[in-house]
Amino acid sequence: MRTVLSFSGGMDSTVLLYHLKYELDHEVIALGVYYGQRHEREIAAARAICLTTGTEYILADLGACSELFKGSSQTSAEIDVPEGHYAEESMKKTVVPNRNMVLLSLATALAVSRKADHVAYAAHAGDHAIYPDCRKEFADRLGEAIKLCDWTPPTLLRPFVEFSKAGICARGAALGVPFQMTYSCYKGKARHCGKCGTCVERREAFQLAGVPDPTEYQE
Amino acid sequence: MRTVLSFSGGMDSTVLLYHLKYELDHEVIALGVYYGQRHEREIAAARAICLTTGTEYILADLGACSELFKGSSQTSAEIDVPEGHYAEESMKKTVVPNRNMVLLSLATALAVSRKADHVAYAAHAGDHAIYPDCRKEFADRLGEAIKLCDWTPPTLLRPFVEFSKAGICARGAALGVPFQMTYSCYKGKARHCGKCGTCVERREAFQLAGVPDPTEYQE
Repeated sequence: MRTVLSFSGGMDSTVLLYHLKYELDHEVIALGVYYGQRHEREIAAARAICLTTGTEYILADLGACSELFKGSSQTSAEIDVPEGHYAEESMKKTVVPNRNMVLLSLATALAVSRKADHVAYAAHAGDHAIYPDCRKEFADRLGEAIKLCDWTPPTLLRPFVEFSKAGICARGAALGVPFQMTYSCYKGKARHCGKCGTCVERREAFQLAGVPDPTEYQE
Repeated sequence: MRTVLSFSGGMDSTVLLYHLKYELDHEVIALGVYYGQRHEREIAAARAICLTTGTEYILADLGACSELFKGSSQTSAEIDVPEGHYAEESMKKTVVPNRNMVLLSLATALAVSRKADHVAYAAHAGDHAIYPDCRKEFADRLGEAIKLCDWTPPTLLRPFVEFSKAGICARGAALGVPFQMTYSCYKGKARHCGKCGTCVERREAFQLAGVPDPTEYQE
């Protein structure tokens, strides 16, 4: 099986990489996307994880398309990254316009081009409150469109869509994921800030899963 | 009403631009995409048409992502552009991997960012035999995914999905579309070749619609 994975270098997609590669024995092609994100440091993390695991990494550079993604704290310098819990209303300003459809349509193009069987992404249940394009209904509809996008289309896999973030963390620990190599922080500094939505959620996931957290937080 | 139009500068999307702008009085933002297409000359045509009509034109430059779209005569220099009728089996090599989903996901991102009401594209009935992502079923499914992509999502318009190309041509003539400014040829030279699938289809549409064809063909 060959699978194109939408791969950010964060905790969730790294656990999915390990799940696909070591549990299901898929040949994985990891696709990263630069869309002008403030936290582009995740791309260096993604590259390092792919080097370590012998995974092909392709970066789709949409740096020249930043106009399309304006209006989020992650793509507009004038909007501050909110601090607090991931599920709070204030986190809606971190939503990047239609990000998951863009990431998955690019991953699907690569899958068609490389004759891959699947496209995969790591949406999980904890995302749903804030991120419309992480909802199961969204993934279901997009999966149906993907089934019709080509004469021999790939299928969309999202094995973590019912998992909590803690569940993904526990799964990753069981698979030996090097969590210290993953990068989640929305602020994009060298160290995780520990205060933004993703940092708070990441830290909480380790605690709830009872997995030692190797992340170096700034404070 | 504000609408983001997936706009190539070809006959179909130009007629749709005129339909939206002059018939329905929409404020149109035209989105072009460079994905490494051999026929990038269409972008110059698109810019000129937007200048003439006072339409905002945005180009999403995916030139750095050409790896994703390989395997088509339109994106791979080593694959020749086939000559003959558009509906022939040989034309399948002109299919660009998942192009319409990529174009529409980018258009949807821009629509969310700019708070537009609609996303539009000019799929038509004549496309269906060869292009999987022009089928009504595909557009229906993708339209459903778009409805879930954001908390205030745009809706997908494809008013020509049941039209023949000749029907679009007749509609364009009624709207006063400057057909001589549009560019369709897959070979991408200064003049339309007159032999590739799109040229054959374009010429046929003018004949069937009984509209004078102002295109300068090479032969």
